[in-house]
This record gives sequence, C-alpha cells and structure tokens, in this order.
Amino acid sequence: MKKNPNTNSLELAMNEMGEKARIASRGLAALNSFTKNSILKAMADAIDKDADLIIAENAKDLNTATEKGIPKPMIERLTLDKKRISSMSAGLRAMIELEDPVGKIISSNIRPNGLKIDKVSVPIGVIAIIYESRPNVTVDSAGLCIKAGNAVILRGGSESFNSNRALLHCINRAALEAGLPEGAIQMPAFTEREAVNIMLKMDKYIDLVIPRGGEGLIRAVAQNSTIPVIKHYKGVCHLFVDSDADTDMAEKIIVNAKCQRPGVCNAIETLLIHKDIAHKFAPKIAKILYDKGVELRGDCEFRKHVPKAIPANEQDWFEEYLDMILSVKVVSSVEEAVDHINFYGSRHSDGIIGKNAKNVAYFLNQVDSAVVYHNASTRFTDGGEFGMGAEIGISTDKLHARGPMGLAELNTYKYIVYGKGQCRN
Amino acid sequence: MKKNPNTNSLELAMNEMGEKARIASRGLAALNSFTKNSILKAMADAIDKDADLIIAENAKDLNTATEKGIPKPMIERLTLDKKRISSMSAGLRAMIELEDPVGKIISSNIRPNGLKIDKVSVPIGVIAIIYESRPNVTVDSAGLCIKAGNAVILRGGSESFNSNRALLHCINRAALEAGLPEGAIQMPAFTEREAVNIMLKMDKYIDLVIPRGGEGLIRAVAQNSTIPVIKHYKGVCHLFVDSDADTDMAEKIIVNAKCQRPGVCNAIETLLIHKDIAHKFAPKIAKILYDKGVELRGDCEFRKHVPKAIPANEQDWFEEYLDMILSVKVVSSVEEAVDHINFYGSRHSDGIIGKNAKNVAYFLNQVDSAVVYHNASTRFTDGGEFGMGAEIGISTDKLHARGPMGLAELNTYKYIVYGKGQCRN
Repeated sequence: MKKNPNTNSLELAMNEMGEKARIASRGLAALNSFTKNSILKAMADAIDKDADLIIAENAKDLNTATEKGIPKPMIERLTLDKKRISSMSAGLRAMIELEDPVGKIISSNIRPNGLKIDKVSVPIGVIAIIYESRPNVTVDSAGLCIKAGNAVILRGGSESFNSNRALLHCINRAALEAGLPEGAIQMPAFTEREAVNIMLKMDKYIDLVIPRGGEGLIRAVAQNSTIPVIKHYKGVCHLFVDSDADTDMAEKIIVNAKCQRPGVCNAIETLLIHKDIAHKFAPKIAKILYDKGVELRGDCEFRKHVPKAIPANEQDWFEEYLDMILSVKVVSSVEEAVDHINFYGSRHSDGIIGKNAKNVAYFLNQVDSAVVYHNASTRFTDGGEFGMGAEIGISTDKLHARGPMGLAELNTYKYIVYGKGQCRN
Repeated sequence: MKKNPNTNSLELAMNEMGEKARIASRGLAALNSFTKNSILKAMADAIDKDADLIIAENAKDLNTATEKGIPKPMIERLTLDKKRISSMSAGLRAMIELEDPVGKIISSNIRPNGLKIDKVSVPIGVIAIIYESRPNVTVDSAGLCIKAGNAVILRGGSESFNSNRALLHCINRAALEAGLPEGAIQMPAFTEREAVNIMLKMDKYIDLVIPRGGEGLIRAVAQNSTIPVIKHYKGVCHLFVDSDADTDMAEKIIVNAKCQRPGVCNAIETLLIHKDIAHKFAPKIAKILYDKGVELRGDCEFRKHVPKAIPANEQDWFEEYLDMILSVKVVSSVEEAVDHINFYGSRHSDGIIGKNAKNVAYFLNQVDSAVVYHNASTRFTDGGEFGMGAEIGISTDKLHARGPMGLAELNTYKYIVYGKGQCRN
C-alpha cells in the first residue's frame, strides 16, 4: 500500500490519472461493438484463469480485516471464493450479449432550412465509481463502463485494496491486449481519503461520479464534489393497502416485499393500511409477518389492533432497516398515504394495492419516486427485472438517470447537424 | 429591500420558501395542459396591463445602477421599455402553443411475468434559477418552468431587484387567480449573497439549480451547490476548414458564425485552417474579416500568410471574446483540429467545413461538444432553431440536458409499473 508524502504530489498523480482517463475515453468512444465485446471476453477469461492469484490477494485483505476486528457481515461481503469469482466472469460474459448503447439515433429532424439535426447517444466520457467493500463492484463497474464506451476510475474501500488491485491488474492486462486504450480502467494507487477529495474536484477530467455504498459515503461525496453525482441512496420503500384491496393479494405482496430479501434497497420498510380495513387486515397481516419472524413497529392506531407491536417513534418512519423489521401505520386516505411517503420516503420504490381507479391514479401520479407500483411487489426495482440486463445501481436522483441505471443511462447524447452551407439569418 | 438581521432567520425564511415550493410542485404536477395554458395567458395579459407600473419600478433600479456607476452595457441589459415588456408577454403566449412535455410515455414494456413497465415523463419538481441583470429571465423562466409542471424559485441580481419583484408580483397575482398553486413561483425577499448560499444547500426542497450569467456566477454556484446544477457555460466555439473545403461556402459560414451576432455564446471564437490551403485561404478570409471589422489573432503559421494579424497567446485559445475578435490557427490535420477543440473548447458548438467523408466522420464523432456541425454555421445552436420552441438556456454539461434545453429537458421520468399481484421469485 503506497503512501504519498504530501498532498501536492498526490494531487499531481491524481490529475495525471484523470488526464490519462480523458485521453483513453476518446479512444474508447471510437471502438465498435465487436472490439468492446472482445475486450469483455478477454477480461472474463483472465479472471477465470487468475482465480487462485486473486483469492491469495483477497486473503491479505481478509487477514487485515480480521486483525482490525471488522464486523462479520463486512468480512463476509469482502470474501472472494471460486464461486464468487466465476460469477464475476459470468457477469462480464452476460454483458457481451447486451445491445451496445452507443450511436443510437434518438431523434432526427429536418428543419425548414434543410439542416438535418440528429440526436445521437454517445458515451459520457470518464466515470468515477467510489465504493465500499464488495470487490465484485470492481469488475461489474469496469465491464459496464467499457461496454458503454466510458473510461472508468475505480476507488474501492481501503479494506479491499489488495483484492481490487489484483482484479484490476488481471482485467486490465487482458483488456489492453484485446484493444482497450491504455488508461481506460484505472485505480488510484493511494488509499488516503485525501485522494477521494482531490478526485471530486477534478471536473476537468471526470464527467460523472457514482458513489455506491452506505449513507455516510454518499453524503460525503455529494457534499464535496464539483463533478455531477448520481446518488444510489437508501430505499425507504412503502406499500399502501387501500380500503378495497384484494387482501389475499396484499398479504402475498407484503410478505414478498418485506421477507424475500430484507437486506436490499427495494424491500419495504413501512406498510400503510387504510383505516377502513385496519380492524380486520391489521391483525391478519401481523400474524403472518410474526410467523415469518418480522418485528413490527406500529403507530397508535395499528397498535389498537395489534397490541403486541412495538410503538414506532418518529425516527422509525425514516429508517431503512435492511432487516426483518417493518414499521406500520394506519392512514385515513390515499392522500395521507401519499403525503407520508413523500415526506418520509427516499424516492425509491413505493406501491399501492387496491382497486379504486381514482385512488390508484392519484397515488401513481403524486408519489414522487423513481418507481411506483400498482398491485406488485417493490422488489422488482432492478435492472434485470426491468429488462435492462445489468445495472450499475438504482438512482434515487431525478436528473439524467432515475431508478435502475443500465447501459443506456451510462450514455449521454450529442447533436450532430448536417448542413449544405446554411447560415443563420 | 428587506434586510434580515441574522443568518438563522434568513435560513428559516429560505427553508420555508423551499417547503412551500415543494408543496406547490405536487399541485403543479397534477395540472392539465388547459389549466397551465390559461395560467400562461393570464400572466401575459397581466404584464401588458401593468407595463407602466413595471417600467416605474425598473426606473428605481436604473437610478441606483447609474448612481453606482454600473457599466453601460449592463444598464442597457437592465432597461425595460414598452417594447421589451411586449416581447415578454409575447414569449409567454408563444409557450401556450408548445406541446405539454408532461405525461408522455417514453417507453412501455411488458415483461415475461406480465408486469407492464411504463417510463413516463414527469416534472422535475422544484427548480431554482440564479441569474444576472436581464429582467426578462424572470418571466421567461417562470413561464417555461410552469409549462413543464415545475415550481420555480427565481433569484435575480440585486441590481434588478425592483424590476424582478414588480414582474413577479404581476405574473403571480394573475397566475394564482387562473389556478396556479400558491408558492409555485417565488423570489427570495433578501438580496444578501448569503441567501444564495443557503439556497444551494436546500437539496431537500430543490431538485435542480440553473445558473444563468457570467463565468464567475456559474463557477460559484457549481462549487457551493449540493443540489444538481446544469451549467450554461461559455461558448468557445470553433470552425475547422479542411483541405478540401468549398472555400466559398467556408467564407460565408465563417462570416456568419463570427459577425452576425458576435456577443452570443454560439458565435465562433477560433478558426482552424488546414495547412494545405492556408497559403491561399488565410489571406482571403483575413481580407473578408478585416473588411467586416474583425480583429484577428493568429498563431505563427497564420501570421506567415497574414503578417498584419496580432500574435495570439496561449490565453487567446481559451477566450470567449463575445466581440469582433477571432483567433486563428493553422493545423496540419483533422486530428490536430479535434485535439485543439477538445483541449481549449467549452464543449458547446463546433463545426467542420470539408468534403472528405472520413475526416468529417472523425470530427463529428471525436469532438466532445453538445452540438457538432458539418458545413453549417454554429449560430444554429438555439432552442428555436432546433424546433424546440423556447429554451431555458444551452447546457454545456453532459448529464440530463446537453445543448439547447427546452421544455422536454425541464422534465425527468418515473417508472409506473402495473401488476396483478406479481411477487419476485
């Protein structure tokens, strides 16, 4: 782990990296689909071939982590084995099958003066990914960025430095041989936090920053960056059961949205129940959820029907438990449900279960979230489930990309105007 | 001009404004096109009716400006007369004719599990516009934001405070009567710079900041904002004349792009000439431009052919003159032209004049600008010329909106997913 003596030389090194990435991005933008796919294939083959080496480097990180007493779930996320490495290379191979997003004519327009104006998809340029422990992000992000024609700077957590470096060396060597421009995939050789702060000001070289990790990381990046950031923030997702809902359907959807995989961002954290059905539905769903091992935290009204529930406090409504815990509130109308979601939610994924068309339309229109559902589980918010193939994350921002962010969202556009000597009057 | 005693109460007042805007934005998102157009019409009528009052308030600003010795061009931009007021109301009336961008189904996709996933255009929410002297921005921005379904916070320069306030009161009163939700158009009552800094951290209430003005303003906003910013930055635009260009066409395009309106961002600042034609073309274009009153600043090679030209220094290549000045460089290839543009340009609008299809394709692909031209004047980079109707500016950023930014770019999207009880496996 190289340490740099002072900020000036760190800044110099980081800027050099940025400049290399910028130059590489021009070369990348000109690569055709066949070359990009060959690069992905070479990367996948190299990972399979170097599996033992990567696992050996990963062991160094695991040792340090164990010495430092890092919590078990984090060590679990950090651990690489043959199976996880195969799934990385399989991920790259799956990207080969995806359609190239670059060079699509989004719209074409011939003006009265004869100018032909094409709006064409092009790579964004240079993307920086800042992420925590999971080393598979190194490979996934590199693959997706390359397929979308972007150079990428990868800044993983210091806890996975050796694993990330081994993965990067492995894929980079193979990719360069297959025609990737040098500098297209880079990783700072420094683990100082200062390196990130310098990077976040390099708007001359970097076009987009994507932070992937906990709330603290994302906030810090958003606060310090002069480069546009697309945040993949927490998911405080809701389901609202309206008074005329098919309660059998509601039960199935709630169980799926809460229990099928509670540790992910598209699982629900809060259930809202219409007051007119609460006396019957609240005890019924409570029993089902208790049987599944879910802890319930309810407002006063819910606890009238389910006295066993823990009282929910104000903080509970903001909470992303990522666990078998659910807050539950009884509301008197769809308007109250929507207001609750817009106030406490995180603009990720929220659903209504019900039949009243007016209420459904109101909910779908007024809930200000990336994905809104009618009669379905919020767990479907996912690039794969949406038919995008792979995703780099789920944006909770509103600009450029919202919801699952796939290859298309890793592109921007430019206007190409074809003339025959036209001048403006 | 109200002054606020301390930052705390200023912060409170600004946050209250933000919250009001957020609530108004929900109401706005639900308005239909007919209502929004009625609001625009009411605003236009009110401006025409209140013209004298607005001119009287403008006179106060002009007095202060004259006392302060503010430069003439700035006073000229600040001045309102009957004609300028009519053109504001005409602008609003033109927006009525434009298609409503909200609620378009961008794509629709039925998944194998039967889920129907619609990607639908929706308003962004709350937009803050930070701008300098021209009071017409108040009316234009308000109109465009409302038509696109967004609430807007307008922060004009202190030099136009009275004019902006008069315009805002006038359009707001009329718009509220016509059905605009209260708080949809607001303006801080404070001229302190601190108000802007507070606003730029209000990411809870504001979804997008658009700065419109000089380089200093835009940089300050981008540095301090935790809210996404779309920059409408300078235009250092280029034309490259390739060795096989139709020189008659090149002359016409160059004169148009430089001289037709030199003070705007899509006028060219630098001309690049292929070396093989420089000996003939350089003196010829120089004569034409000198006759038009253009000052030329050339590199060594150009000055061999046009000794009269002022030597260009390094800073010249970065300069947005916004004046009858042109820097000129002789380059040895299309590659050199592209490298020059990508290094010194501002990613706005750049063109190639030539016939060689390979060179043209290389230029259009590799120049990393919002708009690239073949055989046409860069002056066409404009919402009106692109057929968008009105524009809120020209984005030199790459994310969300690039180039002319019209109503469609004042929207984002959400996914609406229709199910029949689907759960994830």
